[in-house]
Amino acid sequence: MGKHFLGFALVSTMLSVTTTGFGQSGNVVKYHATMKDVKYVYGVAEPVAHVKSGDILETNSVDAFGNAIQKPGDSLSLVKGDNPLTGPFYVDGAQPGDTVAVKFLDLQVDGDQGVGALVPGFGALNETSYTPMLHTPLPEKIWFYPIDHASNTAIFKALDSNFSVKIPLHPFFGCIGVAPAGGEARSSIVPAEFGGNMDSPEASVGNTLYLPVNVAGALLYMGDGHAAMGDGEVAGTAIEVPLRTRLQISLIKGQKISWPRFENENTLMTVGAYRPLDDALRIAFTELVGWIHNDYGLSDVDTYELLSKVAKIHLNEMVDPNYVVIASIEKKYLPAKKK
Amino acid sequence: MGKHFLGFALVSTMLSVTTTGFGQSGNVVKYHATMKDVKYVYGVAEPVAHVKSGDILETNSVDAFGNAIQKPGDSLSLVKGDNPLTGPFYVDGAQPGDTVAVKFLDLQVDGDQGVGALVPGFGALNETSYTPMLHTPLPEKIWFYPIDHASNTAIFKALDSNFSVKIPLHPFFGCIGVAPAGGEARSSIVPAEFGGNMDSPEASVGNTLYLPVNVAGALLYMGDGHAAMGDGEVAGTAIEVPLRTRLQISLIKGQKISWPRFENENTLMTVGAYRPLDDALRIAFTELVGWIHNDYGLSDVDTYELLSKVAKIHLNEMVDPNYVVIASIEKKYLPAKKK
Amino acid sequence: MGKHFLGFALVSTMLSVTTTGFGQSGNVVKYHATMKDVKYVYGVAEPVAHVKSGDILETNSVDAFGNAIQKPGDSLSLVKGDNPLTGPFYVDGAQPGDTVAVKFLDLQVDGDQGVGALVPGFGALNETSYTPMLHTPLPEKIWFYPIDHASNTAIFKALDSNFSVKIPLHPFFGCIGVAPAGGEARSSIVPAEFGGNMDSPEASVGNTLYLPVNVAGALLYMGDGHAAMGDGEVAGTAIEVPLRTRLQISLIKGQKISWPRFENENTLMTVGAYRPLDDALRIAFTELVGWIHNDYGLSDVDTYELLSKVAKIHLNEMVDPNYVVIASIEKKYLPAKKK
Amino acid sequence: MGKHFLGFALVSTMLSVTTTGFGQSGNVVKYHATMKDVKYVYGVAEPVAHVKSGDILETNSVDAFGNAIQKPGDSLSLVKGDNPLTGPFYVDGAQPGDTVAVKFLDLQVDGDQGVGALVPGFGALNETSYTPMLHTPLPEKIWFYPIDHASNTAIFKALDSNFSVKIPLHPFFGCIGVAPAGGEARSSIVPAEFGGNMDSPEASVGNTLYLPVNVAGALLYMGDGHAAMGDGEVAGTAIEVPLRTRLQISLIKGQKISWPRFENENTLMTVGAYRPLDDALRIAFTELVGWIHNDYGLSDVDTYELLSKVAKIHLNEMVDPNYVVIASIEKKYLPAKKK
Repeated sequence: MGKHFLGFALVSTMLSVTTTGFGQSGNVVKYHATMKDVKYVYGVAEPVAHVKSGDILETNSVDAFGNAIQKPGDSLSLVKGDNPLTGPFYVDGAQPGDTVAVKFLDLQVDGDQGVGALVPGFGALNETSYTPMLHTPLPEKIWFYPIDHASNTAIFKALDSNFSVKIPLHPFFGCIGVAPAGGEARSSIVPAEFGGNMDSPEASVGNTLYLPVNVAGALLYMGDGHAAMGDGEVAGTAIEVPLRTRLQISLIKGQKISWPRFENENTLMTVGAYRPLDDALRIAFTELVGWIHNDYGLSDVDTYELLSKVAKIHLNEMVDPNYVVIASIEKKYLPAKKK
Repeated sequence: MGKHFLGFALVSTMLSVTTTGFGQSGNVVKYHATMKDVKYVYGVAEPVAHVKSGDILETNSVDAFGNAIQKPGDSLSLVKGDNPLTGPFYVDGAQPGDTVAVKFLDLQVDGDQGVGALVPGFGALNETSYTPMLHTPLPEKIWFYPIDHASNTAIFKALDSNFSVKIPLHPFFGCIGVAPAGGEARSSIVPAEFGGNMDSPEASVGNTLYLPVNVAGALLYMGDGHAAMGDGEVAGTAIEVPLRTRLQISLIKGQKISWPRFENENTLMTVGAYRPLDDALRIAFTELVGWIHNDYGLSDVDTYELLSKVAKIHLNEMVDPNYVVIASIEKKYLPAKKK
Repeated sequence: MGKHFLGFALVSTMLSVTTTGFGQSGNVVKYHATMKDVKYVYGVAEPVAHVKSGDILETNSVDAFGNAIQKPGDSLSLVKGDNPLTGPFYVDGAQPGDTVAVKFLDLQVDGDQGVGALVPGFGALNETSYTPMLHTPLPEKIWFYPIDHASNTAIFKALDSNFSVKIPLHPFFGCIGVAPAGGEARSSIVPAEFGGNMDSPEASVGNTLYLPVNVAGALLYMGDGHAAMGDGEVAGTAIEVPLRTRLQISLIKGQKISWPRFENENTLMTVGAYRPLDDALRIAFTELVGWIHNDYGLSDVDTYELLSKVAKIHLNEMVDPNYVVIASIEKKYLPAKKK
Repeated sequence: MGKHFLGFALVSTMLSVTTTGFGQSGNVVKYHATMKDVKYVYGVAEPVAHVKSGDILETNSVDAFGNAIQKPGDSLSLVKGDNPLTGPFYVDGAQPGDTVAVKFLDLQVDGDQGVGALVPGFGALNETSYTPMLHTPLPEKIWFYPIDHASNTAIFKALDSNFSVKIPLHPFFGCIGVAPAGGEARSSIVPAEFGGNMDSPEASVGNTLYLPVNVAGALLYMGDGHAAMGDGEVAGTAIEVPLRTRLQISLIKGQKISWPRFENENTLMTVGAYRPLDDALRIAFTELVGWIHNDYGLSDVDTYELLSKVAKIHLNEMVDPNYVVIASIEKKYLPAKKK
């Protein structure tokens, strides 16, 4: 026991120092994304802009359909590619083995409408390309969600009956990640060790996301804005919207993590992304045991036991090529952080 | 589409009527369970008491270890069987095809101490009997949790360091279920269609649990009291305690459900119990689509879409022979219930 | 390491002795099963006959549909219960902790026709009760397979075109098992530690099946005869037939196994039955490592390595409530058996 | 139903024509791979050679460890990267939507020794990076397998006892694949739609492999030679060897497949690669249903039923990031191929 935990201790110390540093103002880097320069893979590509550790990045994203679905009658055949990504942003000085931290300062729906869709071959209760069956697929359907900025809600309107209801907005990036390790390039629909299509509502204001740096400059991408999403994203889409955002980017030198992590003042959150969900959960929890063991000094079995009593699980999505589970613990249940 | 939903409509109407009826006082049936008359399977057995629809049942349960672990030095070898069950209670008039409703009126920890344990061959991050590997198993460990009734907390005390922390109590039955269908009898460690070891914190005050009746009298069992539990119950145990309880039992005649359901004033909750978690989630969500479609009149695809935007998932446990996921929706997102 | 292997050593020695003993002739016990006395669960029930260790049992089974599907136009609605079982047979002297060995001496298709069916909600490429989806189910279909005893074949006749082809017969019991442990009773469609609906073509002439004894008399059941079956039994049925059989039953006292095993002159075979297939495979292989380690004296890591080079996997079925994988090794790759 | 099958019909016709064409001799392209020019991802890279449809390719591969493990005492720390790949080979004229066919004419172990290893964090009975647990990992171990070219065998020698046994050689490429679709680049340890680390013993003499073309030139890679492998490759390695090979490459224009396929005179074989095994199996079988439906004219439900009676499943591996299952049927069970 203890195997998972080598080399974490310094990470946590540095993460702590860096988090404190977020309060300092950095330069503001502005970049406006359009469909002309979106990307469809996380990988090595020409940066659209450079940021320095501490900088504020102001940018935007088109929606998961490349803004192609605008009005009744528009069909998915208009979509050129799923999850067009803004980026990559080159983090100056970032090298493999470092960690990049992204603090979500502001996220706003960039428009007056969101879109939801039933996509044949996609969804937790559909047969899909990776869980294929012999049934006739469920048919394509599209729902439009007017955004009411005043009440901060989106409106669901049933297609088959006369019913509508307001849904509170919780804007977040469905996609945020960096270039993968080992020379891989991964589709914008995939979540994995490099982040990506995690569909984590945790990628939102108030939280900081840590991502492993795998290539020089880290190469940060984001997109797939969601105005709101149910746990599991079971039908395959959230309320898909363009977003405007302000992020603070920080670089943590010489510290390595294996999977993405989120943190805020009160909570530690670890990401597991794989199939089946059983393995996504195992990844998230071994990561959380390792984090606590190294930064807060509990033994691994004490940590395991404590998590069995107070951990929370957030099942983000079960529809993408990998499924995503977040394990978390409130810091109030932990000893003081190690110096 | 629509296949899952035949025959649900009347259930919901009846459930509605019955729920209203819970306010009425019934007779009080009292039964005191001891280790002399616990059971270790959900199945057909001599009833320990009879209850009528509307009756209040006051009873108790021993802990998951049969109260065998009391002090440092006690080992799991003292445990005669896992999850000893109180019951069965015979619900007068219940016949296969009916539904029994259990409203949790009161739950109290019946003692001053809870127990947690690392059980070799059990746990989400252990190799287990159903996910066996070749490693040396993690060793047995036991934690004792003093219960502070005044502050309504239990105290975690680390074994390997000098750390303790208070955990708020949320008492619930890890096990509650009825005799299975088809002449089966199932171990008290199994959750399935008949309920059982669901390890659902939803089995607690404020909620009503619906269970399918499979045999005459339904034959209700309960046990495995938990003072508090983390999502996933990842190390294999909660804070295991004896419980005292007051429940109201109601019978819904001629109405059939396939899987357990929970409900309260604000929320519909459906249970899926299987492996892998992927399938548990699919069960819970198809059940929820069916419930909403039948009782609230949304089409199945509108329901699926809406759930993708506002559903909640509670991953109860990933340690028992079947894993348990609860899918839920707040009623505020639904149309008015059908008459 | 080594944990899985305690207490196996004597088993193997005894198994060896007993296997030798199969050559001796025992008494012949004859029992004719009809639909009047079939059972639908593996559990404790009144024995239909007693057998002594070494006895020959001559008996028969109805088909998986209770012989209810006989001619075009017959539908699954005629079926009273799936997999009606012949038995139970009480093995005199068998006690929990013993092992019962069943040697398949003869198996004959008991009739001139087999049946295959597409059962809504059942099958590896269908949505099912445990992998539910929102699609319209595949419709019920029934195929009849004339048996040609002269050529020892069954004839597949396409429903939607004018094509037929002969399939060689390989008769075996889809169901064979004993009463489960711990007071459980399990449906005749379930395979698990007690055997049951393993759908193993290995349950056929030339092989010996070992089953753990969990209750006094073991209580052996069999049924679900198959004239032939593809790997995976993917559409949910084999060529379903009544069978006549001759079996030799032996009792191995004081020796305990955890999961069913098959053996013949050349091969060791272990059964894993669970979901997902990943876990069924892990069970089968840890069992095989344990068997080899204990009976043939290779270290566990040497065994693991050797299996990675020469093991065979037979994926029996992926359609029942648990999935079944058999791992095997030819004995020619092993050291001499320990005395 | 029928959804999976659009656009297959012409593929099959063309495949048929092309297969016939294999008999014709093409030019011979020779390329000698060394560790200086191996690749570690399937993706777009500078071709090492060009081949025309019909050409014979004579080349070689280093072993999965880059030939770094040569003698007792060598450790995995010497390995620079897993599964170094020979290639890519540019197939002249290949464009996305085409299919490339690789016929295995000759495969020879290129040396006198093979290597097997227990790699911490890798293997079906080990905790791994994607099925992590809290146990102490199994330790690294290495086995050397002398190759006896005269008897066409490799020799397993136990590390912990004095036992050795000969294993017949069956040389094949563990890795063979093309650049993935959608701009992805995938690690040489991954099997997926583009082929890759399928660990399929089917990639051997007598069979033809079909791969989808995703980029101009297809970009064919191969490596990870295996002298012999058990089903499942359960400990994580086969008998790892360098290989020499002769392959015939053919291009099938304008025909598209979704997943790799194998074929020989007698058998149709389809590949499914994903997690869990359940989904790999579903992929392989829906592919096989589609192939038969389109090329042999059976309806999809007749095909499904027939496969349930005569299909074979070969579980190639359960250790890589995706698991691989091959579903197959002997052509003797099929109608005449459609013209």
